[in-house]
Amino acid sequence: MTQPSAARLAVRQNASAILDDLRTFAAIPSISTLSEHRPDIVRASEWLADKMKNQVRLNNVQILPTGGAPIVYGEWLENPSQLTVLVYGHYDVQPVDPLNEWRTPPFEPTQVGDNLHARGISDMKGQVWSFLSALGALQANGGIPVNVKVLVEGEEEIGSPHLAKFIAAHKDLLKADFSLNADMGIVDPNTPSLVYGLRGLAYFELWVHGAKSDLHSGLFGGVVHNPAQVLAELIAGMHDAQGRVTLPGFYEKVRTLAEDERAELARMPISEEQLLRTAANPPQFYGEAGYTSFERMGARPTLEINGLYSGFIGEGSKTVLPAKAMAKISMRLVPYQKGADIRPMLEAYLQANAPASVHWQLIEHVHSDPVLTSRDSAPVQAAISALESVFSMHPIFRLEGGSVPVVSVMQDVLGIDSVMMGFALPDDAVHAPNEKLHVPTFLRGIEVFIEFFQNIRK
Amino acid sequence: MTQPSAARLAVRQNASAILDDLRTFAAIPSISTLSEHRPDIVRASEWLADKMKNQVRLNNVQILPTGGAPIVYGEWLENPSQLTVLVYGHYDVQPVDPLNEWRTPPFEPTQVGDNLHARGISDMKGQVWSFLSALGALQANGGIPVNVKVLVEGEEEIGSPHLAKFIAAHKDLLKADFSLNADMGIVDPNTPSLVYGLRGLAYFELWVHGAKSDLHSGLFGGVVHNPAQVLAELIAGMHDAQGRVTLPGFYEKVRTLAEDERAELARMPISEEQLLRTAANPPQFYGEAGYTSFERMGARPTLEINGLYSGFIGEGSKTVLPAKAMAKISMRLVPYQKGADIRPMLEAYLQANAPASVHWQLIEHVHSDPVLTSRDSAPVQAAISALESVFSMHPIFRLEGGSVPVVSVMQDVLGIDSVMMGFALPDDAVHAPNEKLHVPTFLRGIEVFIEFFQNIRK
Repeated sequence: MTQPSAARLAVRQNASAILDDLRTFAAIPSISTLSEHRPDIVRASEWLADKMKNQVRLNNVQILPTGGAPIVYGEWLENPSQLTVLVYGHYDVQPVDPLNEWRTPPFEPTQVGDNLHARGISDMKGQVWSFLSALGALQANGGIPVNVKVLVEGEEEIGSPHLAKFIAAHKDLLKADFSLNADMGIVDPNTPSLVYGLRGLAYFELWVHGAKSDLHSGLFGGVVHNPAQVLAELIAGMHDAQGRVTLPGFYEKVRTLAEDERAELARMPISEEQLLRTAANPPQFYGEAGYTSFERMGARPTLEINGLYSGFIGEGSKTVLPAKAMAKISMRLVPYQKGADIRPMLEAYLQANAPASVHWQLIEHVHSDPVLTSRDSAPVQAAISALESVFSMHPIFRLEGGSVPVVSVMQDVLGIDSVMMGFALPDDAVHAPNEKLHVPTFLRGIEVFIEFFQNIRK
Repeated sequence: MTQPSAARLAVRQNASAILDDLRTFAAIPSISTLSEHRPDIVRASEWLADKMKNQVRLNNVQILPTGGAPIVYGEWLENPSQLTVLVYGHYDVQPVDPLNEWRTPPFEPTQVGDNLHARGISDMKGQVWSFLSALGALQANGGIPVNVKVLVEGEEEIGSPHLAKFIAAHKDLLKADFSLNADMGIVDPNTPSLVYGLRGLAYFELWVHGAKSDLHSGLFGGVVHNPAQVLAELIAGMHDAQGRVTLPGFYEKVRTLAEDERAELARMPISEEQLLRTAANPPQFYGEAGYTSFERMGARPTLEINGLYSGFIGEGSKTVLPAKAMAKISMRLVPYQKGADIRPMLEAYLQANAPASVHWQLIEHVHSDPVLTSRDSAPVQAAISALESVFSMHPIFRLEGGSVPVVSVMQDVLGIDSVMMGFALPDDAVHAPNEKLHVPTFLRGIEVFIEFFQNIRK
């Protein structure tokens, strides 16, 4: 084992300053889905641009308009003979509701033990600050050894609606040999992993309309079909008794897992009990018959209800027969399903199953394709060595259940694969109350990124 | 046909003053289910007591505490040889949401054509003001010809939680020969009707809990059972393909309709098309197989979803796997079902059908028994004659789909039947946005009450 590099040692010395900056970044409530937080989105982009320019000392730092939240860009291209890495991150975060379940204010980063709590600190302001801190440490200790382009967007949490168009319009600016995507996690603080597949997403809002206004459930209960009941029946029909999704054609293009992949997923050093804990302790697991939990989470498609609303949901009782009912419904997709194929499937299901006593309306919010990348390219080898050097362990190859639409956009528009390496932990409560970042893992992640950029150098 | 009495003529002359008072009454937002409206409840009770004392000139007017909203009481007992009528009403109203669907402010009574719009104006401030105006007109024109006790409560819209106890504690004060309950309607402005049966109610809130906090649907979708999906499946299972409720034992005690009752219900002078209109135009009707719409609405029990909530229901998309999901569920009951029997049925259903991958929790908000009364008592004959005298038509005997718990309380605690006669219309939008009162029908109702009190006199 060699001595840690000067850059890695610098990170250890400057840890408290690095964390101070992260706290400032995480205190900005840059929630992309709520229009009232638009000024915070702008503020977060300006904070980042300032740091990239004046602290990491990248060149050509710009805040670029997209039609939605701006993209922050910066570059370091002083090594013409070396490869160019396009580093991706996002500075926007999820909403905070239910706010009353937070133990500390979501935008006042608070350290509790080894964890720093704030909305978006794991997903993914911590990851963004991690690779920028790595670049900053390299810059100050011998220089960034390869060429780097950094792109940080502000609309990932709403499905990156402007990103593909932006990348297509800036092909020359963003030209690179491969991408590094840090919107990822590892298995546990001692078990490094690399992601080689991501699920895609299709997100819908389904409205069922009955009578034109709310009715008295005593007067009309029994003759007017209750839209909340119809919605429940439609949702109930979307899974069969084996936990499989019933939309017509849903599994047609689904790729079968290879035996070596199933074996690799079985290496996961996490017991079912530990996994239940990281999943906030449901009474027990549930899922599609015939697959292990890790296979269900990464390699199988799902259909989830993300929200339900109808009628009276306040305190006490109101005997209303609601005029309408709504569900937010999303599907996680796996190779080789296509995001654009799902809407027609859902429409076919609704046409076949919705009764004539109601009207329905389907809104598609977003869709993205699933991703599968190489497991043996040179950049992936560089990532493996970097993880081994910091964690002293060979990483596990994982299929990730979440969706990172930009990875398929990079493939489709720029023709480049992504190395998917980040340091969120399964119990970070991303998208949930009390989201946190494990500080020791965050600091190790910076060292891995330093090793990675060094390993890329020819 | 005899000349209208002096009291009836007085109502016609004073119509505009009567309506002015009603507007003042309806402008008080006495919403019983929302604790922040507690001062308005008090204000409404004080307004009523003042009117009963100083305008109707009843004796012994009191605002009596109940542990919840107070009861307003007044009496006129100056005819010792005559029968005593206990007149019932309520001064509380339903909440107004969804507020944005109101075309005029719910607590600024607004006349549009023949209709006066305000929350609670039909259910039942208009009905209360109708019988009080009848008593006032009699008082000023020859005197109230029988003995009257007036009880107006403030918790009907939350299921009258303190009323039974109050009545039991005031048996002597409330002793009467029969009750008049005006929380009722007629078929249309030209078709009078009397109610001889009411549905009971059992109202629940069902929570399904999965993980202890919201999760990222990408990370855990496929292994953690989605409580919104489970709730939908549980709700879907509560009806079979014939529209029948599946709770074990639900139909066991349900009374079979007699042939003469089915024939009477078939007299309803309303087409399916008209009925769809009064039901705010659903695409078509739905209901339990084997029954007509009027039978389903009055004589058959139902199970309704009054509210649904889970996860993210704001603007846009949030890929959350919710920790919990809630439904407000209520059953309308018919003779001889018992309100107290429903909770064990629902619990048995949930025990049999809820999967082990979630926890569930059931809260009962309220229950009340259905009611069936005599169709040929002397007070009912007096009501028939009163309706004939004003409408020139024999009334239709109806089974009412709504629940008026006090009627069964009067039977159980005071041992008296109720004459159920009021003048709401099916299209009054009670419990819904833009609730209204049809002014010509309201004024005719006052004359019916005058005739009724006169007919009761021996």
